[in-house]
Amino acid sequence: MTDNGNDTDSSPSGDPWLLTPGPLTTSLSVKQAMLHDYGSRDATFIDLNTRILERLVAIVHGEGSHVSIPLQGSGTFAVEAMIGNFVPADGKLLILINGAYGRRIATICDYYRREYLMQESAEDVPVDTAVLDATLDADPDIGHVVLVHCETTSGILNPVAEVAATVARHGRSLLLDSMSAFGALALDAREIEFDAVVASSNKCLEGVPGMGFCVARESVLVNTEGNSPSLVLDLYDQWRMLQQSRQWRFTPPTHVLLAFDQALREFEAEGGVTGRGRRYRENCALLIGGMRAMGFRTLLPDELQAPIIVSFFMPTNPQFDFNDFYDGLKHRGYVIYPGKLTVADSFRMGCIGRLDRVQIQGALDAVADVLSQFGIARIES
Amino acid sequence: MTDNGNDTDSSPSGDPWLLTPGPLTTSLSVKQAMLHDYGSRDATFIDLNTRILERLVAIVHGEGSHVSIPLQGSGTFAVEAMIGNFVPADGKLLILINGAYGRRIATICDYYRREYLMQESAEDVPVDTAVLDATLDADPDIGHVVLVHCETTSGILNPVAEVAATVARHGRSLLLDSMSAFGALALDAREIEFDAVVASSNKCLEGVPGMGFCVARESVLVNTEGNSPSLVLDLYDQWRMLQQSRQWRFTPPTHVLLAFDQALREFEAEGGVTGRGRRYRENCALLIGGMRAMGFRTLLPDELQAPIIVSFFMPTNPQFDFNDFYDGLKHRGYVIYPGKLTVADSFRMGCIGRLDRVQIQGALDAVADVLSQFGIARIES
Repeated sequence: MTDNGNDTDSSPSGDPWLLTPGPLTTSLSVKQAMLHDYGSRDATFIDLNTRILERLVAIVHGEGSHVSIPLQGSGTFAVEAMIGNFVPADGKLLILINGAYGRRIATICDYYRREYLMQESAEDVPVDTAVLDATLDADPDIGHVVLVHCETTSGILNPVAEVAATVARHGRSLLLDSMSAFGALALDAREIEFDAVVASSNKCLEGVPGMGFCVARESVLVNTEGNSPSLVLDLYDQWRMLQQSRQWRFTPPTHVLLAFDQALREFEAEGGVTGRGRRYRENCALLIGGMRAMGFRTLLPDELQAPIIVSFFMPTNPQFDFNDFYDGLKHRGYVIYPGKLTVADSFRMGCIGRLDRVQIQGALDAVADVLSQFGIARIES
Repeated sequence: MTDNGNDTDSSPSGDPWLLTPGPLTTSLSVKQAMLHDYGSRDATFIDLNTRILERLVAIVHGEGSHVSIPLQGSGTFAVEAMIGNFVPADGKLLILINGAYGRRIATICDYYRREYLMQESAEDVPVDTAVLDATLDADPDIGHVVLVHCETTSGILNPVAEVAATVARHGRSLLLDSMSAFGALALDAREIEFDAVVASSNKCLEGVPGMGFCVARESVLVNTEGNSPSLVLDLYDQWRMLQQSRQWRFTPPTHVLLAFDQALREFEAEGGVTGRGRRYRENCALLIGGMRAMGFRTLLPDELQAPIIVSFFMPTNPQFDFNDFYDGLKHRGYVIYPGKLTVADSFRMGCIGRLDRVQIQGALDAVADVLSQFGIARIES
């Protein structure tokens, strides 16, 4: 990490470090890759584009079985596109929900008038595969199941391998929203059966926001023509155009792609999923250990915690004011995130993006400093 | 223009100059604005976002009547969102077509199963308001009319004021796709009645690609709740969220917005629509004059030509090969664009983006140089 100056405690851009679920801190070299204007039909740009798509397939070991399709917009654009493309108008989708991102998929189905069932559990409880098994047994009309890999609402890791095995045993199709996990948590298409997974340029792959993508099983994708209710979100049509001309159908976010290409280069230099995941796990362990030492409590037990973002219970000390806490940390160069839980009052701190132990320790020192200003010796929650 | 180094004949980034309909050449300072990572809830970022939205309304003098709503994605995302939000499920849309972008709106209606009529003319013929008048007289069910302000298929300027007056006289609602004209060609909401106009960050406003926007009449927008067939493209919902929290619903392309803010600053420094339009008209006149002097012929007569992009008939000289011509120009630092016409074999050269007479003259010199290499004394077409 010394190549981008992250071994000091101020960022190369002078911006605060982002301990959030995204947009995230990216390396200076990723941002500098955007200092160029490319035409979308330029051969260099087209080659870069093709290279990005091939690497996204390789990250999940989908060579030969899966292809990738890029899409303009935020991650939710890719989630909506996946639902619209893979669940046909007369299909029935089972949505496994334990947070806001699962619930958002139900909202998408409401817009699209797709039939769906929800299997919902509390935000601190992982998806139950025994219940899933029984639901699929009872309802043969469910053709597709969708799972959020890591729910950033809480930071919980869902049991993707067990869910995939259950869905496969029933011969149904699995769709994955791996927005905040793709690239950091292993997802091997040779071992875990899924027909489509969506993620974005800006989470664990550490590019800038502005595009998402879908890695889809080609033998399934080929039969999705005409499913999409939207022109711009039609992944089948986008894929066909890319096959014909290696170009996007509509203006691609060229600068975002230049940054993404550089981000993938740095991802590979770090050792891919193994290296990236290791750094995030180290960040997460350091963060949780340090926060617990000050008395903070995590929502989740360690075995359910994904090394992506951590929910902490809001302190009950009367001197603790969250807005002042947030501002005090920001003033010291660290941006954290409000909670989104319905089950408890909480706040969140992320461990992804171009951060390592130096920044996590810096954030912990800043927390200690702010608490000392508050006159709090130890957090109660 | 001396402040961004465009007074030399090589770009500050070393990239070729883009004489295309976009992505375009942007100033170095616009690109440098992207060297920062902001959280989407950051107060500085939120202020910047609010400032951008206010300026977009001001560009069309829509203060008090219109509001602006940003949207992730390319310009076509904004076009689809406008159709989906403003034309209700039981509505009927008249599409005025003289090029690929008008036809694309018909495709969007096919996806959305919206009822529509097409008034189509050839690509080198502007929309006929007498025909429009008769069509609206004959069919009271047409609630909305959509027009492409400047059709970049040919480069033709459509008669937006006359169309708007005709639509208003019939009490129907006008929607505008002003993608390639917004910011360079006058569009004054106090004089031209429209309910919504869409454009993007990356055309005449000279930001980088990755977002579009809609400037909508508030009294109409307020009644569009529930119209959008798509969650991510729901402009009403996006607007409500921005009103409540000044935040986008889903991750905004933060770096694209940083660039857009700087681009709008430079737009204002140039004198807004007046200054920007003047530079483009000068670019266009210089380009056409220089090309005609070499024997090239424009598709359009000057009175129909918008100062955005120019279609030239493909030369018929046997020594002329378009691919070699394209490559020769690119090698000399100038990227042009293939034709998209159905009426004639053609190619296109744009005059928008961070280009002035220095680059246009440079492109003309490069054309002369390539023709001389081909052994062509004068173009025939």
